[in-house]
Amino acid sequence: MTSLTLYTINSTIRSGARLCKVYRSAHGTAAYHSFVSLRKSAFLPGGKWSFIRTATRPMSHSSQGWISFRFGKVFLAAGAAAVTGVVAAGVSHFQRAEMATKIIKVKESEGDIKERCKSFMSAPVTDISDLEQRKDELSTRMEMLIMETQAAFCKALEKVDGGTFRVDRWSRKEGGGGISCVMQDGKIFEKAGVNVSVVSGYLTEEAAKQMRSRGKVLKGKDGKLPFRAMGVSSVIHPKNPHIPTVHFNYRYFEIEEADGSKQWWFGGGTDLTPVYIDLEDATHFHKTLKDACDKHHPKYYPEFKKWCDNYFYIRHRGETRGIGGIFFDDLDSPNEDEVFSFVKSCAQTVVPCYLPIVTKHLNDSFTPEEKDWQQVRRGRYVEFNLVYDRGVKFGLATPGSRIESILMSLPLTARWEYMHEPAKGTREAKMMEVLRNPKEWI
Amino acid sequence: MTSLTLYTINSTIRSGARLCKVYRSAHGTAAYHSFVSLRKSAFLPGGKWSFIRTATRPMSHSSQGWISFRFGKVFLAAGAAAVTGVVAAGVSHFQRAEMATKIIKVKESEGDIKERCKSFMSAPVTDISDLEQRKDELSTRMEMLIMETQAAFCKALEKVDGGTFRVDRWSRKEGGGGISCVMQDGKIFEKAGVNVSVVSGYLTEEAAKQMRSRGKVLKGKDGKLPFRAMGVSSVIHPKNPHIPTVHFNYRYFEIEEADGSKQWWFGGGTDLTPVYIDLEDATHFHKTLKDACDKHHPKYYPEFKKWCDNYFYIRHRGETRGIGGIFFDDLDSPNEDEVFSFVKSCAQTVVPCYLPIVTKHLNDSFTPEEKDWQQVRRGRYVEFNLVYDRGVKFGLATPGSRIESILMSLPLTARWEYMHEPAKGTREAKMMEVLRNPKEWI
Repeated sequence: MTSLTLYTINSTIRSGARLCKVYRSAHGTAAYHSFVSLRKSAFLPGGKWSFIRTATRPMSHSSQGWISFRFGKVFLAAGAAAVTGVVAAGVSHFQRAEMATKIIKVKESEGDIKERCKSFMSAPVTDISDLEQRKDELSTRMEMLIMETQAAFCKALEKVDGGTFRVDRWSRKEGGGGISCVMQDGKIFEKAGVNVSVVSGYLTEEAAKQMRSRGKVLKGKDGKLPFRAMGVSSVIHPKNPHIPTVHFNYRYFEIEEADGSKQWWFGGGTDLTPVYIDLEDATHFHKTLKDACDKHHPKYYPEFKKWCDNYFYIRHRGETRGIGGIFFDDLDSPNEDEVFSFVKSCAQTVVPCYLPIVTKHLNDSFTPEEKDWQQVRRGRYVEFNLVYDRGVKFGLATPGSRIESILMSLPLTARWEYMHEPAKGTREAKMMEVLRNPKEWI
Repeated sequence: MTSLTLYTINSTIRSGARLCKVYRSAHGTAAYHSFVSLRKSAFLPGGKWSFIRTATRPMSHSSQGWISFRFGKVFLAAGAAAVTGVVAAGVSHFQRAEMATKIIKVKESEGDIKERCKSFMSAPVTDISDLEQRKDELSTRMEMLIMETQAAFCKALEKVDGGTFRVDRWSRKEGGGGISCVMQDGKIFEKAGVNVSVVSGYLTEEAAKQMRSRGKVLKGKDGKLPFRAMGVSSVIHPKNPHIPTVHFNYRYFEIEEADGSKQWWFGGGTDLTPVYIDLEDATHFHKTLKDACDKHHPKYYPEFKKWCDNYFYIRHRGETRGIGGIFFDDLDSPNEDEVFSFVKSCAQTVVPCYLPIVTKHLNDSFTPEEKDWQQVRRGRYVEFNLVYDRGVKFGLATPGSRIESILMSLPLTARWEYMHEPAKGTREAKMMEVLRNPKEWI
């Protein structure tokens, strides 16, 4: 089965409007060994963008921690590769104008900054006085949101586990820092990490060049392009094989050009990696995400669900990492308020998506064989994160990265068995069937 | 500490002579985030080669399985990066002419092909009748050597473990195949894999282009460049944390140009990854390798020992994977017989390098804490293999690869602890000290 999904943003609505196409190919073809970049096409009217093949190295979207979006825009071209193979059939698209009509303006009062900070796991990375001064800016609103998401999720997990998160603040000499919350070897959770990072600096010429390959002409002041990136990122590995692993990451990126104009965009997603299929869990998880998406646009869930299946794909195994969820990147339309509002809705689903599943399986008994199967699946999780995850790859290759925060996503334990293949008809085989053929859950 | 090592091959001795420079930088500097490629320099007389920085993506040499050398020559440019950081200080060099005078010609009778095949784990990949017809060719001599090495090593391990290797023959539709021998969950060995592969095909235009970036002008017949690659590759993970993990890989690559001329070269190495430092073991291991090297050239051991430390380096951790051994690539001088003879000496050391260490520690008792530390070190092994090992990376990205043979090198179990750092003065801390500052063992 091949299909193509695409959404375009009409550049007549706003100059500099970005377009994003997502091609999807059949898994398992040689096609995915090519990667694509986004180029302005002379053949498409209205300043549309198209993917072209540029090299044979497969690359993928970012999803882990701050480093993942440090050069978010730079990633887009390559990121498309995870989503793609090569051009296939079937088209759907919607336009910015259409979106704008469907989204209710939400410029809500978000409350007193200092008061809100009291509930956080630690003080925000940015000084509270700075946040207060710039309280209406998108970066401030996002920093408050990621801190709130971290606190809400950590507290919900602590409540169910009985354990406490270790909180590490770290700073980055180039600018900014982060707050890593990790609970290891708890009662319920083998390893649970919830990271926040807020970093800033300048884009290198190399990065700027890569950005141009996406079609953006970015003019730096004296060759420098100041950027600011922030996000919340989490991976939770429970002990009980009947409680799935969850991952989410919501991020914001902005870059300033020489003329003072600002480019900004959001990315993120939430996805589930069960060890065994539980239809009720899968439906609940996807339905919760769909409800959040539907409040903003009816095409968000179907588009971002497909993007997720394509991104979290372990190509060399021919299987997805888990049963997906949603994944999106480079979202900047129809406007700041409305995109932020969507990201906020997504971030606010992480607890209702996951906690009911945890609670449901808290006391499930399991066999050593079920634990072994969990460990084999954990091995695949490690394979995805170390081989494909663009955030991890970029983080490991970048000087000054906080390695422990990047690799916090790896499970406490994992297993690799030579030629492991579940026997036909088993629950393990059913899991594999789903991972090899992603399905619709709602 | 920075140092530079380099060996050159005088191009006046043979046209097309290759030169190889190995730069070594201080570990832990930002320098290693650049990678280098080999380019013919206008500034160096005699057709010498120099490294130049070409991109910011770190890459590394191949070391796992057949895929590692399938495009061995293509790898050289990038491979240099693992060995390097950036140009540093201190020079040593020796010339092909010098080597030629020091190496005794060894064109020994290697015995009856059919008779020798009887001791193998399985029939060779190439038909015995073909091997007999081409018995003096380098490719035949190497195929026999890798089959013999596989058999000798597997049998030595079976004897000490009491278990039996599972033998899987596999073929590759593009040409050739392999024999994977794996013992899992034995008495002594958690996972032991010894792979042989013999593959052939054509270089793609992309691969040929990459080869040109190394300076080689390779002319294919109708644009096609037939190649043949073969090797033996092994990783052994024992259960007892006092028995180290060992890895070796010896490989041969040849490519035919349009005029029928043949380019060929060898690569390989053997390295040890202990969980705790045992000075006697380390000395024995390195001394055995040095003795094998010294029979061929006094500079082989020191050069290839450095190359090994540089290659098996986990950059994001600032530590080597283990205590090294030897590593070399692109060896084609002074002539076929002498290089083959050197590779044969190396391949014949794998049993005497490792088995005495296994036997010595067979009955060592260990604590759960020592087992945990082994598991943490196994995690680092996984990180190296999935993030840096060029053979693994290339294999996973190549259609038609036998994934199970490539990932056979991963341990049965591994562990990732957040912020793990051994307490000062412990044996674990001593291990880390050595991994952070590679030392001379003899």
